[in-house]
Amino acid sequence: MNIKGTLVIIGGNEDKGQSIATSEQDHLEFIEDGILSRVVKESGGVSAKIVIIPTASRIPDQVAKSYLSAFEKLGCKNVEVADIRSFEDAEKKENIQLIEEADCVMFSGGDQSQITRKIGGSKIHNILQRRYQDDNFVIAGTSAGAMCMSEKMITGGNPKEFFKKGTVKIGDGMGFIPNLIIDSHFIRRKRFGRLAEAVAHFPHLIGIGLAEDTGLVVKKCNSFEVIGSGMVILFDGNSLIFNNESKTPQGEAMTVANLKTHVLADGFHFNIEERKVYFNSTLTV
Amino acid sequence: MNIKGTLVIIGGNEDKGQSIATSEQDHLEFIEDGILSRVVKESGGVSAKIVIIPTASRIPDQVAKSYLSAFEKLGCKNVEVADIRSFEDAEKKENIQLIEEADCVMFSGGDQSQITRKIGGSKIHNILQRRYQDDNFVIAGTSAGAMCMSEKMITGGNPKEFFKKGTVKIGDGMGFIPNLIIDSHFIRRKRFGRLAEAVAHFPHLIGIGLAEDTGLVVKKCNSFEVIGSGMVILFDGNSLIFNNESKTPQGEAMTVANLKTHVLADGFHFNIEERKVYFNSTLTV
Repeated sequence: MNIKGTLVIIGGNEDKGQSIATSEQDHLEFIEDGILSRVVKESGGVSAKIVIIPTASRIPDQVAKSYLSAFEKLGCKNVEVADIRSFEDAEKKENIQLIEEADCVMFSGGDQSQITRKIGGSKIHNILQRRYQDDNFVIAGTSAGAMCMSEKMITGGNPKEFFKKGTVKIGDGMGFIPNLIIDSHFIRRKRFGRLAEAVAHFPHLIGIGLAEDTGLVVKKCNSFEVIGSGMVILFDGNSLIFNNESKTPQGEAMTVANLKTHVLADGFHFNIEERKVYFNSTLTV
Repeated sequence: MNIKGTLVIIGGNEDKGQSIATSEQDHLEFIEDGILSRVVKESGGVSAKIVIIPTASRIPDQVAKSYLSAFEKLGCKNVEVADIRSFEDAEKKENIQLIEEADCVMFSGGDQSQITRKIGGSKIHNILQRRYQDDNFVIAGTSAGAMCMSEKMITGGNPKEFFKKGTVKIGDGMGFIPNLIIDSHFIRRKRFGRLAEAVAHFPHLIGIGLAEDTGLVVKKCNSFEVIGSGMVILFDGNSLIFNNESKTPQGEAMTVANLKTHVLADGFHFNIEERKVYFNSTLTV
């Protein structure tokens, strides 16, 4: 499969104190200019048509406004919002047209299940898949918008109980990249156990834990570059030598041995097919 | 070196809501009966002399009382408190006598630096080391009391910024076990990055991340068994193929590749010299 498009998968950056949001869906996700600049660059520069999709958020108007102003600050002249709040909205002519004309779509944070519920299986989903495959098309997403990109998607679960069997909830994502399973806010929201459990359950997948203000630029569905000021944690399930996930009763602690872990900072690359780490074009592992 | 003693290294379990403690030093650490029973068993049973050392805590009287009542509930008849609040207390005759007569000492949670500051290098420290080496002597500790056991000890740092160079603070511990570096409350206090950074800095060490209500029973300073309801995360720094910690400027994100990670539940064993995982006596990795 020859994929022409690019994914920009961003860990998100929490609103720190300006809001009284109590739930993840109510947070405004502030992305550092550096990462957003990269989205613009991958999309073809400040003239690119960028379409914001704030479907994951419970405060889509505020989120859309915040992205419009952030892209405007970077000099972008052609930014619009696809206001998709239901499956019907994801089949509407004007929204379809926006996506057909876009160089880049940007999924906001919030609840990733809202994206799959309202856009998954819709005409817009089909167009996104076709354009991602055939065009120089960019799909960017932060937080929930990042987590929805894989085929298998973490949907929730109590982080305090993770790595006890059955705690992580996993559903179907948007399927833009089949080999990964993605978690965001990896450091601040203590998600080590949640991602490790997901990889124990699907050991053929590569678990991706995105720290805040950190992202991946995925090319041809096969290699990615780390960008931003934080780190990306990779769990390579292929290396597991022992894994009793399937035999562990629900609610009990599991054991895995030999989980190959990489912690990668800005500028490092990972080849998904080879499962190897590069710096620039030099093989490091 | 032929070590006769046993370490019981416990991840701690936070007081949930009963206290208005704002700092780690003010928390009462509640250990589940199962783990405390194991401490009693390793010490020789309910007649064993167990000495509580609440030095790490800022509320040592409350902590001591809470342990006295917990051991009493398990049927222990010979539990005392070594009230060590200064280096001078760690040289006092009555405290020395308590340690000389004990079958087991139990270090409470709080601030691990208080233990090394007040007991490190004292007569009591020497007696603990001698008795750990020569006798069937048990040194148990929870939370800060667990973290102090290694030669290199994590003393602090802001968990939100971890895996940026220089964020983790490391000092000298009590030195009962040289090959480990221990972190507690691994899941609830989001310490993935902190422990990974410590191992990147000392890659010859094995990083141990203890989840709540989980512990290790270390025998002969060379192998340990996991006990409790949660998990223990091991980072084996020996396997690292790429590690730019030493070259990374302070405050910037680091990269390590190929960090071998094990997540072990109750009943699994790890041989420190071989760096291998066993279940009962069966080699799994």
